[in-house]
Amino acid sequence: MFALTFLGTSASVPSAERNHPALLVETAGKRILVDCGEGTQRQLLRSGAGFRRLDRILLTHAHLDHVLGIPGLFSTLGLRQTSDVMTIHGGQGTLDLVIRMLAGLWGAGRAPIAVEFSALTEGQVMDAGDFIIDCFPVRHRDTDSFGFSFKSPARRHLRPERLAELGVPDGPIRGELAAGRPVVIADRTIDPEDVLGPPSGGRKLVVIGDTETTEDLSKYVSGADLLVIEATFLDRDASTARNYGHLTARDAAAFAAATNVGQLVLTHQSGRYEDDEVLAEAARIFPNTRIAADFDRIAI
Amino acid sequence: MFALTFLGTSASVPSAERNHPALLVETAGKRILVDCGEGTQRQLLRSGAGFRRLDRILLTHAHLDHVLGIPGLFSTLGLRQTSDVMTIHGGQGTLDLVIRMLAGLWGAGRAPIAVEFSALTEGQVMDAGDFIIDCFPVRHRDTDSFGFSFKSPARRHLRPERLAELGVPDGPIRGELAAGRPVVIADRTIDPEDVLGPPSGGRKLVVIGDTETTEDLSKYVSGADLLVIEATFLDRDASTARNYGHLTARDAAAFAAATNVGQLVLTHQSGRYEDDEVLAEAARIFPNTRIAADFDRIAI
Repeated sequence: MFALTFLGTSASVPSAERNHPALLVETAGKRILVDCGEGTQRQLLRSGAGFRRLDRILLTHAHLDHVLGIPGLFSTLGLRQTSDVMTIHGGQGTLDLVIRMLAGLWGAGRAPIAVEFSALTEGQVMDAGDFIIDCFPVRHRDTDSFGFSFKSPARRHLRPERLAELGVPDGPIRGELAAGRPVVIADRTIDPEDVLGPPSGGRKLVVIGDTETTEDLSKYVSGADLLVIEATFLDRDASTARNYGHLTARDAAAFAAATNVGQLVLTHQSGRYEDDEVLAEAARIFPNTRIAADFDRIAI
Repeated sequence: MFALTFLGTSASVPSAERNHPALLVETAGKRILVDCGEGTQRQLLRSGAGFRRLDRILLTHAHLDHVLGIPGLFSTLGLRQTSDVMTIHGGQGTLDLVIRMLAGLWGAGRAPIAVEFSALTEGQVMDAGDFIIDCFPVRHRDTDSFGFSFKSPARRHLRPERLAELGVPDGPIRGELAAGRPVVIADRTIDPEDVLGPPSGGRKLVVIGDTETTEDLSKYVSGADLLVIEATFLDRDASTARNYGHLTARDAAAFAAATNVGQLVLTHQSGRYEDDEVLAEAARIFPNTRIAADFDRIAI
């Protein structure tokens, strides 16, 4: 399961209702921040999510509205005297900006907490056993930008009625079968296929920050249970969207329909529009659409 | 008149209720920001004050919770393509930190808007005719820290009954008298003292950020209509307050009583305490005390 908490859902300029971009993804005991706009530390408090066990930040790209909350978050974590290491993942250009930002405040290579930088290239960011995170390149203006695909594997569960039929006793022997290994009971070999049900429970969450196009992204997004993606403009301002390297609500919805995702959540909302307008434009094309608001929580 | 909008009232760590320090002072058509903690740009929006005509930032000292909102504010002002110059006043060490912070993000000497830096020494910051701002040194740990005294002059208004008695006609001649210049009417010289009432309406507002002591500050604060000052700790934690270079509510209230101020507003509140506790400790000594909350507006 992935539990998402939207900490900020505005485009580059915040509003009274929306803070700068940040999204908390929680799964299998891990808490991962995607982007960290100005004020994210306080949004963590306001949302009730808090700071505990936050050990990893994925950055979509190097624009300031997505990274300016890092120094303040680190200051506060430093005051809490945590010994945890914070890992920041991002394109090399994004990491370079963060490194310069921290150096401007604390001096080269210094920060209030231990920080590791991990430069992204296409492929795996993290394999935590219970889930993996893959990253993939996204085009947004002059930045080296990435999207993220969170996947938890489908699992095959033991079928109780088959265990009973085949006389498999309780105990470690069932664990062996659940793990896919054959066992021998009184000279009979029992194959995992005899007792395992069909795969179930796999989840795929895709998060894409600012992007100027959905071209070439289908293969990463296809079949996601949930797609979180920007929709900064409406179709009537499509030329402005192109100029600034952003999608329209219509673009995002058409992409969701084409990639057969389960649910679409639009974020990075501009103060130009009412939520209802954005939702209406998208939902005409992809009905299962939602406009993210600050502090929304969604679980898949 | 001075109108204050409290944009952030927390100590170094924000809370769900309180943002990082920032205070907007409006007077005579000018809008001046005192400190600019992380998230101040959004607090300006949330408070309804907005960004217009914001042309000056006074910084009390160089700690990050008081300055981290500057880059984001400048980014947003830059997107609005303002041609106004933003002047930042602060001790040289504080300005050096801001300069390094901006350089880390945009390169040396660059920013999204035109910025001027004005290093404080004791004395006048600004004389805008209708009001002046003086600054004075404050001791807070290792920073070069300043407090600010905003003063609007008392004015003497024409007394209508005296104008009638002396037969002073309407028109520019009354303006001369109001400005303190004698006039001649049919060979009679009328002296301004004959028609002006007593001075009235002068106001004095003093804002002091983090400070480890009130020693040596009385002469700057004496007789202020309103004193805004930190009170980070309660008396039961007085030794911690000393260690971290802060006041207790009791310290602040005793200082307000000794300097004969009109009203005391305590800010820079720690999440350790309930507002009621802080207020009770201060009000026992100085009854006209208020604990600032985010978005409070006070006019004097």
